[in-house]
Amino acid sequence: MARVAIGIDLGGTKILGGIVDSEGRILAERRRPTPAQEGPEAVLMAVRAVVDELLAVTKKAPDGDPLEVIGLGLGIPGPVDAERGISRFSPNLPGFSNTPILPAFADLGLPLAMQNDVRCHAWGERCFGAGRSIDDLLLVTIGTGIGSGIILGGKLYTGGSGMAGEIGHIQLVTDGPLCGCGNRGCLEAIASGPAIGRRAQAAGLGASARALFDRAHAGDPEAGALLEEIAADLGRGLATAVNILNPGRLLLGGGVVAVGELLLGPVRRHYEAALMPVVRGYCPLLPAHLVEEAGVVGAAALHLATATVRS
Amino acid sequence: MARVAIGIDLGGTKILGGIVDSEGRILAERRRPTPAQEGPEAVLMAVRAVVDELLAVTKKAPDGDPLEVIGLGLGIPGPVDAERGISRFSPNLPGFSNTPILPAFADLGLPLAMQNDVRCHAWGERCFGAGRSIDDLLLVTIGTGIGSGIILGGKLYTGGSGMAGEIGHIQLVTDGPLCGCGNRGCLEAIASGPAIGRRAQAAGLGASARALFDRAHAGDPEAGALLEEIAADLGRGLATAVNILNPGRLLLGGGVVAVGELLLGPVRRHYEAALMPVVRGYCPLLPAHLVEEAGVVGAAALHLATATVRS
Repeated sequence: MARVAIGIDLGGTKILGGIVDSEGRILAERRRPTPAQEGPEAVLMAVRAVVDELLAVTKKAPDGDPLEVIGLGLGIPGPVDAERGISRFSPNLPGFSNTPILPAFADLGLPLAMQNDVRCHAWGERCFGAGRSIDDLLLVTIGTGIGSGIILGGKLYTGGSGMAGEIGHIQLVTDGPLCGCGNRGCLEAIASGPAIGRRAQAAGLGASARALFDRAHAGDPEAGALLEEIAADLGRGLATAVNILNPGRLLLGGGVVAVGELLLGPVRRHYEAALMPVVRGYCPLLPAHLVEEAGVVGAAALHLATATVRS
Repeated sequence: MARVAIGIDLGGTKILGGIVDSEGRILAERRRPTPAQEGPEAVLMAVRAVVDELLAVTKKAPDGDPLEVIGLGLGIPGPVDAERGISRFSPNLPGFSNTPILPAFADLGLPLAMQNDVRCHAWGERCFGAGRSIDDLLLVTIGTGIGSGIILGGKLYTGGSGMAGEIGHIQLVTDGPLCGCGNRGCLEAIASGPAIGRRAQAAGLGASARALFDRAHAGDPEAGALLEEIAADLGRGLATAVNILNPGRLLLGGGVVAVGELLLGPVRRHYEAALMPVVRGYCPLLPAHLVEEAGVVGAAALHLATATVRS
């Protein structure tokens, strides 16, 4: 009987669920929109519907080999209390505030686990992606926000109060733009997708990060110069975390990174330059391996991997 | 029979050694100058002499209760390969370059351990000092340089290649002063003892950190303003590390910190302000408890503590 886990990636706009096998392959997938505006109860009912659909699939045993579901893992945006199964708050899910998540699934009789979605992604990379066999690993996602998942000594490191990895909120400059967190000059306020869009707009180089990247790709020297500035900010922020954590690999994921080497090339150059010289070359910066499926695979991997997750 | 460990703090100018009991108390102490200019062999012979003197003391059993020596721990400046017992290099010990340390003590038949001196200090605070019962702990020392020791999940975290905790070399500003590491704008180049002295001198406010602190203490408004600037730099650097690591306590040690609340007060204010607002108040900034004896106690604690040190 093949052992699988069900992984759920609960996002602000959609719920993605999958049956994931012990090699990290998705055997079946279900999705539905997140009824975010209808509040936590409606959101959890929608998640439950996805879970029930996937469980029904596991019982069908298409090729006669039934699937043994060893657990259900949930990836949730924002800070979580993984031990108590609570979403502390979530910028993209109105009404989530110390909301119990796991009780809605207790009747299934399955081992349950939950974790912040970016940490799920990091854990998925460690188990099945670009971080395999790397004991000390940092995954940074650059999209609407900037977040990170930290693997230390082969385990997910979540911090003293579950808030580790807030690399998006290191203050890169003292008089920088206002950040959603309330501070000024945070890396997220300078180099997230929306922040890049604002910088492009202020420079008259397009209305979005995408537009800026397109211009730079087409050879516009002003767009290239702004891209270089942004890469310098990102490189310095990433090197800061690596100087402190000394991981063996740095993975970049998230929507902004999808643009590829046009951005990653200059970021990598500035990152290496901002590292303490004696550690240069030790921690390569690579694109994450998991993309859209990262949350599902990572949430399932909370059960599939042999290494224990520290919660 | 009381169980003790011998701890050695090998510094650039002196070797301190002590017999440390299971409560972290120093029962006897020996010291001698470090013959740093005579090279690694002479330095290790001097360390060995201190160890031999202390071992002789343990055999005397002053009150009839003999001491059982359970191990020898060495704290070494600069990066070490703790597992292989090697000093990789040390700015203050000329000639130390992938120098084997532990073989010089193998004939003693004692369990041996070594670690970087600041990490020893952090471990000592965790076992016997201001970090007792704190599982996630950051100790930062501000003196000639700026270093740190990181305890995560109750264990010393040393990084993928033993270089974790280089908070002194995070690039705080892009066009800052040249640092000893080769980069510009590192926290150490801006706010270590010598860097503070250079800033004082450049502002005509004295020739050393001490002189600046004295003027500020006496109420000189210009000295007070510069102190405030320095505190802002330190606060931002410390908050950066805490935003990433989410420890439960931040301890400050080292020569610069000895000035006390005159500096710690403003540093604490800027540190809290630079933290991500939702984590403010969780990780208090406190002075380290261990001072001159920190290295000796911490090195001995590599053997005395029950928690395993990840090397």
